[in-house]
Amino acid sequence: MLLHLDGRGARYRQIYRSLKRMILAGELGEDARLPASRVLAQSLGVSRNVVLLAYDQLKSEGYISGRVGDATRVCALPESGLESLQERVTMTPEQLPERRLSEQAGIALQQWRRRCSGQREQHLKYDFRYGEVSIDQRTVTLWKRLNSRLFDRSLLQYEDPRGDPELRELIAGHARSGRGCHCDADQVCIVNGSQQALDLVARLLIRPETRVYLEEPGYLGSRACFETAGAGLHPLPVDVEGVDTSCLPEHVAQPALLYVTPSHQFPTGAILSLSRRVALLEWAQRNQSYIVEDDYDGEFRYQGRPIASLQGLDRGLRTLYVGTFSKVLFPSLRIGYVILPRPLIEPFVALRWLSDRQTNSHQQRVLAEFIRSGEYDRHLRRMGKRYQQRRQRLIEALQSHFSERIELQGINAGLHFLLWFRDEALAGRERDLVTQAASEGLGIYPVSSLYLDSSPPRLGLLFGYSGIEEERIEPGIRHLKALCDRLFWSGD
Amino acid sequence: MLLHLDGRGARYRQIYRSLKRMILAGELGEDARLPASRVLAQSLGVSRNVVLLAYDQLKSEGYISGRVGDATRVCALPESGLESLQERVTMTPEQLPERRLSEQAGIALQQWRRRCSGQREQHLKYDFRYGEVSIDQRTVTLWKRLNSRLFDRSLLQYEDPRGDPELRELIAGHARSGRGCHCDADQVCIVNGSQQALDLVARLLIRPETRVYLEEPGYLGSRACFETAGAGLHPLPVDVEGVDTSCLPEHVAQPALLYVTPSHQFPTGAILSLSRRVALLEWAQRNQSYIVEDDYDGEFRYQGRPIASLQGLDRGLRTLYVGTFSKVLFPSLRIGYVILPRPLIEPFVALRWLSDRQTNSHQQRVLAEFIRSGEYDRHLRRMGKRYQQRRQRLIEALQSHFSERIELQGINAGLHFLLWFRDEALAGRERDLVTQAASEGLGIYPVSSLYLDSSPPRLGLLFGYSGIEEERIEPGIRHLKALCDRLFWSGD
Repeated sequence: MLLHLDGRGARYRQIYRSLKRMILAGELGEDARLPASRVLAQSLGVSRNVVLLAYDQLKSEGYISGRVGDATRVCALPESGLESLQERVTMTPEQLPERRLSEQAGIALQQWRRRCSGQREQHLKYDFRYGEVSIDQRTVTLWKRLNSRLFDRSLLQYEDPRGDPELRELIAGHARSGRGCHCDADQVCIVNGSQQALDLVARLLIRPETRVYLEEPGYLGSRACFETAGAGLHPLPVDVEGVDTSCLPEHVAQPALLYVTPSHQFPTGAILSLSRRVALLEWAQRNQSYIVEDDYDGEFRYQGRPIASLQGLDRGLRTLYVGTFSKVLFPSLRIGYVILPRPLIEPFVALRWLSDRQTNSHQQRVLAEFIRSGEYDRHLRRMGKRYQQRRQRLIEALQSHFSERIELQGINAGLHFLLWFRDEALAGRERDLVTQAASEGLGIYPVSSLYLDSSPPRLGLLFGYSGIEEERIEPGIRHLKALCDRLFWSGD
Repeated sequence: MLLHLDGRGARYRQIYRSLKRMILAGELGEDARLPASRVLAQSLGVSRNVVLLAYDQLKSEGYISGRVGDATRVCALPESGLESLQERVTMTPEQLPERRLSEQAGIALQQWRRRCSGQREQHLKYDFRYGEVSIDQRTVTLWKRLNSRLFDRSLLQYEDPRGDPELRELIAGHARSGRGCHCDADQVCIVNGSQQALDLVARLLIRPETRVYLEEPGYLGSRACFETAGAGLHPLPVDVEGVDTSCLPEHVAQPALLYVTPSHQFPTGAILSLSRRVALLEWAQRNQSYIVEDDYDGEFRYQGRPIASLQGLDRGLRTLYVGTFSKVLFPSLRIGYVILPRPLIEPFVALRWLSDRQTNSHQQRVLAEFIRSGEYDRHLRRMGKRYQQRRQRLIEALQSHFSERIELQGINAGLHFLLWFRDEALAGRERDLVTQAASEGLGIYPVSSLYLDSSPPRLGLLFGYSGIEEERIEPGIRHLKALCDRLFWSGD
């Protein structure tokens, strides 16, 4: 008997799965006799107990039966019948009867597949992916200590869905002093990272007729939330001053929402100018519209004066400010926050409570103590230095290898910047470059995937430098240059 | 100057909030002079530094100004103007311009207010609230140890949105052996508690035309999710055999979904009979419909043979099985799971990833190790004994004090049961009883609030016994009896 074991998990589970698949697929029909456990064990090179465990599981689920002294045989499948079972077990979501899935599930599925196809299977030697975070050993040690010390039975029942009161006070203070926000702790709601913030904001404000204005190119994670909530998406072009407010219609008849990343536009890195900030706020007031300000990486800044948040300029009347700790500490922490205009606090909390009640209380307490003790600020300074060095190394490597052929954009802040090839003839050739690079162990990411309904005028790449070790940067760029020489400039 | 301090948080924040409120409300107009910090400090009985901190904050936000040697004065508010500021700061969600909030936000808000109004402000001496969990000291100690030991930098980046692979294997094994489920780890998705499971399932399957059939009386938490997702709700009556399947229409033209709690119907505690289980599955097959099986407290059983899950009977073809660890370990943990039919796995994961990426990895690892080491089963046995004792004590106290006047329903399993007053003349009198009880420190909960569009035939109360200490049970019931004597039976 030929069993295909998939190599995942315990051996008896592999055998169990393999046999079940054969039964469901009809390869082992009703009354078919399974090999004696001793025989199968020998042929697979495992102990007999492993096979017996698999058989027991199949018996308990009614797939096979067998008394002592008698052979083990495949049972009749239940009335729903072999075909339908087999069909449903191997069905893809698309093969489900029509109208079975919600529209939002269909949209999310597309986004998810797009994201999965962007994940490379192979190991990349030099990976400039955006969104990876460098883990700091000192922070890990401190966090581990707090994590142990602060576990406490007083935090195990349901707590306030808005979040830990001390953490909210600390975040409000940090947002006021560090980001010029205009808020108190009442306006702060803790969520599971900025993605949940965006999803809840979309569910809070979007109606079927709502128009969402957003940046082009822009952040896919927010776009997906607005789209699944049922909004119409209206991209606005971005230039060196950030989103181009002159492209907004003066008056919008439908309910409208603006989504922006003013401190460091994603992905161009442009900082929204003051005059455009005022224009946005005036527009929002004229159209009774809210603005979502996503300050996804406002903590890291290398050159120039920090610009206070749009939320502060607006005095928190029409701006929902979204911040996160995932990019700053570590992604799997899943803690972010929203600062809300007062009339939105109660409905936001209601939706948050409905969606998953609250964020893990113990982790909130650990974060609160990490901030309160000053360790968070020290962490920011350490990481700021580390990222600054990587950024510097990356800029130098790019300039020395590519010199006049490229232009960098958005280098002053954050954890990424854009590279544009000056030669417009290269526009649209990202696929060759990215595919070939990946096959050579080099991870690079085209900016074209962040456009909704236009294409970039030139070939552009998004460079994240927070996840790549410093010593790999220069060799990675050297490799990229060699590749470009082969692909683009072999005739030069 | 009369400052009203609200007593929340640091003193300087209280002063800051109070002054800001007066400025925004126009009580302190433009150019009004604030008292010298020394004077205000004296009148409030705080140190001068506290007042200076509050003034600094107001200055940094542009509400007041003042140079050294000069008085501190209120600034002109920005162009958006005093009225509009004041209006928006004190606005309720209902006063927002029309069509500003989504419909689902409106529905969630109603549910949330209903829940908040059910929360008593005063301390209850005897509280029979359902949903509280008894915290076990041995479990706390063990959890704390694992929590410290397993914190590890390898878990800090983004992980699989479906959850920790080992935890999913363990849950699948537990569901197969303990609940008769028909699944493997591929079908298990980890979520933040069963509430997120229900919310995501609703978002996955509900379209504007979808009809959801659910139990009457039933669980409010799930109803809210289906309603916000836009479904039409169709309650089905419940009797001693569980939901009455004969009330289902033979054929449904629209897409349909069934939500049931077959192992211990919430709130009646009825166990769905085998013939009705088969009827449900046949109905689902006939109408190409999915079934959501919420096994919210399937872990605790005191009498009778455990009935295997509907999901197992169905072989996981049309049943989405929802389980949680919150009710079993502790609510703030926020870890639950869904076992999905295969074609739904991918779209479910897509929605989960879109909604908040993943559950905290470290907590998942701690839970996995807690289960793997056998401590979870030991915890279940300890808690089973404890809850069994409380349940026994509660039943005895009710029977000895009320004897023939009442009837208990659903006592065989779970963490709650129902009490019905036999006297039908008492139907509808829950408000008197509950309000008076609360004012005397006794928390009791009417079953009528769990009906969607009918009323219970008799006065019924939902008794949770997992949150109340054993020694408080008898005195609490004695108190209730005395209250009933006064309210209902004074003329007997």
